[in-house]
Amino acid sequence: MLIVAALTMGNLMAQERRMPTLDDLLPGGETYRYADNIYGLQWWGDVLVKPDIDRLSSVDLKNGKETELVNVGQVSDILKKNNLNISLPSLQSVQLLWPGETKMLIRTRTGYYTVDWKSGTIVAKQEMPRGAANADFNAESGNLAYTIQNNLFVNGKRLTDEPEGIVAGQSVHRNEFGINKGTFWSPKGNLLAFYRMDESMVTEYPLVNIDTRVAELTPVRYPMAGMTSHKVTVGIYQMATGKTIYLDAGDPADRYFTNISWAPDEKSLWLIELNRDQNHAKLCQYDVESGKLMGVFYEEQNPKYVEPQEPIVFLPWDNTKFIYQSQRDGFNHLYLMDTNVKVYPEKHQVGNSTYNESFKTTQLTKGEWLVQGILGFNTAKKEIIFASTEVSPLQTNVYKVNAKTGAKTSINTDMGVHRAQVSASGTYLIDNFSTPSIAHQIDVYDTTGKGKAKAINLLTASDPLEGFILPQIETGTIKAADGKTDLYYRICKPADFDPNKKYPAIVYVYGGPHAQMIHNGLRYDARGWDLYMANRGYIMFTLDNRGSDNRGFEFESVTFRHLGVEESKDQVMGVEYLKSLPYIDADRIGVHGWSFGGHMTTSLMLRYPEIYKVGVAGGPVIDWAYYEVMYGERYMDTPQSNPDGYEGSNLNNLAGNLKGHLLMIHDYQDDTCVPQHTLSFIKACVDARTYPDLFIYPGHPHNVSGRDRIHLHEKITRYFEDNL
Amino acid sequence: MLIVAALTMGNLMAQERRMPTLDDLLPGGETYRYADNIYGLQWWGDVLVKPDIDRLSSVDLKNGKETELVNVGQVSDILKKNNLNISLPSLQSVQLLWPGETKMLIRTRTGYYTVDWKSGTIVAKQEMPRGAANADFNAESGNLAYTIQNNLFVNGKRLTDEPEGIVAGQSVHRNEFGINKGTFWSPKGNLLAFYRMDESMVTEYPLVNIDTRVAELTPVRYPMAGMTSHKVTVGIYQMATGKTIYLDAGDPADRYFTNISWAPDEKSLWLIELNRDQNHAKLCQYDVESGKLMGVFYEEQNPKYVEPQEPIVFLPWDNTKFIYQSQRDGFNHLYLMDTNVKVYPEKHQVGNSTYNESFKTTQLTKGEWLVQGILGFNTAKKEIIFASTEVSPLQTNVYKVNAKTGAKTSINTDMGVHRAQVSASGTYLIDNFSTPSIAHQIDVYDTTGKGKAKAINLLTASDPLEGFILPQIETGTIKAADGKTDLYYRICKPADFDPNKKYPAIVYVYGGPHAQMIHNGLRYDARGWDLYMANRGYIMFTLDNRGSDNRGFEFESVTFRHLGVEESKDQVMGVEYLKSLPYIDADRIGVHGWSFGGHMTTSLMLRYPEIYKVGVAGGPVIDWAYYEVMYGERYMDTPQSNPDGYEGSNLNNLAGNLKGHLLMIHDYQDDTCVPQHTLSFIKACVDARTYPDLFIYPGHPHNVSGRDRIHLHEKITRYFEDNL
Repeated sequence: MLIVAALTMGNLMAQERRMPTLDDLLPGGETYRYADNIYGLQWWGDVLVKPDIDRLSSVDLKNGKETELVNVGQVSDILKKNNLNISLPSLQSVQLLWPGETKMLIRTRTGYYTVDWKSGTIVAKQEMPRGAANADFNAESGNLAYTIQNNLFVNGKRLTDEPEGIVAGQSVHRNEFGINKGTFWSPKGNLLAFYRMDESMVTEYPLVNIDTRVAELTPVRYPMAGMTSHKVTVGIYQMATGKTIYLDAGDPADRYFTNISWAPDEKSLWLIELNRDQNHAKLCQYDVESGKLMGVFYEEQNPKYVEPQEPIVFLPWDNTKFIYQSQRDGFNHLYLMDTNVKVYPEKHQVGNSTYNESFKTTQLTKGEWLVQGILGFNTAKKEIIFASTEVSPLQTNVYKVNAKTGAKTSINTDMGVHRAQVSASGTYLIDNFSTPSIAHQIDVYDTTGKGKAKAINLLTASDPLEGFILPQIETGTIKAADGKTDLYYRICKPADFDPNKKYPAIVYVYGGPHAQMIHNGLRYDARGWDLYMANRGYIMFTLDNRGSDNRGFEFESVTFRHLGVEESKDQVMGVEYLKSLPYIDADRIGVHGWSFGGHMTTSLMLRYPEIYKVGVAGGPVIDWAYYEVMYGERYMDTPQSNPDGYEGSNLNNLAGNLKGHLLMIHDYQDDTCVPQHTLSFIKACVDARTYPDLFIYPGHPHNVSGRDRIHLHEKITRYFEDNL
Repeated sequence: MLIVAALTMGNLMAQERRMPTLDDLLPGGETYRYADNIYGLQWWGDVLVKPDIDRLSSVDLKNGKETELVNVGQVSDILKKNNLNISLPSLQSVQLLWPGETKMLIRTRTGYYTVDWKSGTIVAKQEMPRGAANADFNAESGNLAYTIQNNLFVNGKRLTDEPEGIVAGQSVHRNEFGINKGTFWSPKGNLLAFYRMDESMVTEYPLVNIDTRVAELTPVRYPMAGMTSHKVTVGIYQMATGKTIYLDAGDPADRYFTNISWAPDEKSLWLIELNRDQNHAKLCQYDVESGKLMGVFYEEQNPKYVEPQEPIVFLPWDNTKFIYQSQRDGFNHLYLMDTNVKVYPEKHQVGNSTYNESFKTTQLTKGEWLVQGILGFNTAKKEIIFASTEVSPLQTNVYKVNAKTGAKTSINTDMGVHRAQVSASGTYLIDNFSTPSIAHQIDVYDTTGKGKAKAINLLTASDPLEGFILPQIETGTIKAADGKTDLYYRICKPADFDPNKKYPAIVYVYGGPHAQMIHNGLRYDARGWDLYMANRGYIMFTLDNRGSDNRGFEFESVTFRHLGVEESKDQVMGVEYLKSLPYIDADRIGVHGWSFGGHMTTSLMLRYPEIYKVGVAGGPVIDWAYYEVMYGERYMDTPQSNPDGYEGSNLNNLAGNLKGHLLMIHDYQDDTCVPQHTLSFIKACVDARTYPDLFIYPGHPHNVSGRDRIHLHEKITRYFEDNL
């Protein structure tokens, strides 16, 4: 009887607090635990609108009281009454783009519909044929651009008629330089600028789909480092005349046209041009009527690289001034350029950067931290509101700077990663943030004072893994291999951690530019698999090495022309730290990463075979010569101009060093890191008589998402359990 | 001092008898041990010619005394004197095609040269351009046919001008039906029959070569079961007129034109036509001038399949009679057909076969054994000399049958596998044979008496692994799953086998048609890897299940329409036998095989997961719908006509059954079993959340040969050592 009772209690306790499964922890899992959030929260001018699935409400910013604006039944009635046979998506996806007007934009696969819920009318509708993609709607004019296959259409009219190999209206340059779309409406919607990319001269990489009756070729035009790249031109379509002109920029070969933005008067188009070597950026203004270059007003050079990522933004209250973002002084900062005040373009130097300015320029922000983006403006107060790492490189906080006085004030310096939406006037802010212990918290407050003011709280999401057994997670810093730079690490220990025991450790690594694995977000960004493995008795460790994000240009660019080398040295410092901990079993160190992290994993296994016993490299870069032109040449130059660097970073040359257990995983449809990386490495190992393991996920591009992500992590887990 | 002495002695002993390495045991290994042999041994009429690298000698058949015919210096002088700047290959590769004439044929990449070593002249030369392939020389006329890419040439003249997608002068029907070439000279060389295959309508399988700067598509036209197949026609080129006609056979869609042979008078061409269903063969005679069908003189049908593999052969002493080979009575036998005696073609039945004969036919051989090929003729005695399994299905021996009397006499019934070359008159025989304990022995003897007579011995090759530690090897029989059929097995035990210990066992399996893993050749055909693993402490076991070669039609065709099922049941009988042995650890049974054996390995792992703990499947068929038309439909019919059979044999449907460790290995350039087999299985396992392992060999077609074969077997070995 007693035994039965004890067992029953044990079972109950186990039921109360159990280990989360991979399905609980990973997106794609059948029982994946999403944190609560409020989807579709938005500003309607300065009115805060909170959508639910079945209603839209305005929220009183003083007391949080919600008032229904319209409900789903009413919207459905309007659609029905107007014979619109569309399936209304959740009201969480509608957009209120017209402040003061009771109009919502409903977006479906078949069209964009503007509904006035007060008058009960369909104000406008824009239908799209099957297969339309890349829809771009201009709220001012109601015009809708979209693509079908490789051509561009506006309001049902075909704008381009390009053959296969030329793509119009889509993102170009493989989404580098901050490019993520191919159409750019002028402010009032009278003109549409768009990219046209001729990639007919680019080598096709032969990807294969095995899911058809007979496997089929699904080639992708993939310009590899040092090889012939695509040619991009910029077109401007005029709604009034129906005519398209192309910018008269000369031969587009080996040039990048990035960061397109419109002049407020719609008379000119601005962009930042880069040379193929990516060490010389030019801010160019083009005339919309003639397509002629009106001038180059800013130039920036750096012996390593210049990487413009943000289009210029004109001040809403002054069409003659715009903000340029540059990391020329080592950190991304805001520069105010005054088009009214031309200056003689002298060559200036700051650090290793040289630059010419043709407009009087004021540096608005400065310091060893970086601006992460402009969030909005307060026209009344002439303030620019922006996201910043000033509090910590692990955080995003909100600041404002006065464009006239240069005075900078914090709006939010709290712990956490703060994603903010600023209201139309700049007076209010939605702050959706997470901290190490909070999944999502949403506060709304006034930005006009100093710091947060009159905050109302809309949500504090409980931990989606509440009630599960979870590891202990800490962060800290160690010194990089240069002996001076602080690097952040994160360590996860089993819930029942016993400092007197010896634990195997697994390093999860990314290590490449534009990414940082540790933030002051939920559980310091520890991934579901980190938690899973810590629960299984592994110490999980991650270190953001030099070369990673949010630490400035010097920190990032120390890897220039020899990717993977310095980063690996830093990761070894991380392992040295681990080994200094009494509870780490130094003979059982593993490493895992994907993409750049797959490169790092392979690099570490081959460069330091005496340290790492087991590695799992997913979708790795093996030879940078197989990577694409834009990203690859920024950091590595070309194989022709940097042969030693390419040879030194080519992990195929180190295949003979493999001693431990290394599982290479590649997606068969990987169009980012093509399968040639892993397959060439396998061949190099066969030649060198070393013995990596291999797995391939057919049907997936550059990572394994959805349901199969569970299989992937079970596969990875088994590999460490069997071998570490 | 004593310790040093002991160590030294130990070392010496280890040096004397050591375990062979994979490099010692496998072709491609750096230290691979080839058995001695005599290359290029040949009949010059009835004169035995033995080539060495530097000389040709005749051998006196009475006493074995060698007399030099010509040496390499003399041949070089002749070439030099005639300004022929070719690099003379070893004299082991020359051919003496003209009995009684002192002429040799020297074949190089650039041409065929006929040298008269007595007169010191170049009698004839035929040059070939770079890239020429499939050279076919007619000794009578001196004409030389060859192909360049997809077109056919004779004596430097282009015969066809076909576009990509049509291939002339090469083997067709994927080398099934005994086809292994695409050109057929008429006896005197006045006419050239050739295959022309239009495969432009066949789906291309997208194989990819990763060894180029950017991976490149290397597609192969691969007709999959049930899909549109190629169309083959037969052309005849007339040397005298320079004209080509094509046989007027009608629409070639879904028909196989096989086993081409010439009438001795060069006036007609014979072939055996098969329907796509492969259950109806027709012996057809075509007129050479008109291309018209002269008649169908023999037809054979079987509800399963008919598989003609040997062209008809006319008796050298009687142009009106030929030999047809058929397994219509269940075993391949010789039938003599007399074209002078036409008979009314009645339908006859034998077993499940039905046939019509239009010529008077005499069955020359009969019995529950099979004729493996015609070796030659003795015109004086009217005898046909042939290879036979009459002594044992594990052997090839030599017999003769008198075409007039039907009297059959054995020439050689000794233990072993006897590969014989018959002299021009049929009087003498070179017998190059191996037995379980002899790698190669070469005897020459008289065939005219009963059994071997006046034998001279040219070589008895010592065991190339002499002095190494080798396992004990035995063979025996067990009953098949049908409870009655005897199946042969081979078992290898470690040299230090201890019957009181428990050993893990690995089954090496092939199991498909047209192959037999056990013969009475050296070590009963145990493979190098079998020896290696037995030395490492595994019991290595192989069983030739029903469906395999040399046991007759019923034995082979029990698998019809459900490949892999019966074969797997027989293999389980093999494991039951193993488990009955006291020294087998029944919990540690592994299985490995390649191609059909890869199919079997996967089938066994999935159908009997409780029996097999570890499997390594190389280049497997997974779904017969991905296999080619010719082989696949013979045994499986089409997916349309046999949907249940295909579903039942499709291992993707069983992916969820995987319990043990299964390593799938596929070659990336596999154009026999395309990678879709293994990749679709991986996907099926991911869907089913089971966990196979995978390895890929880039740059190899359907198996891993050369140097990398060592890597392959080290990889396989490690997998068993880690998991079994």
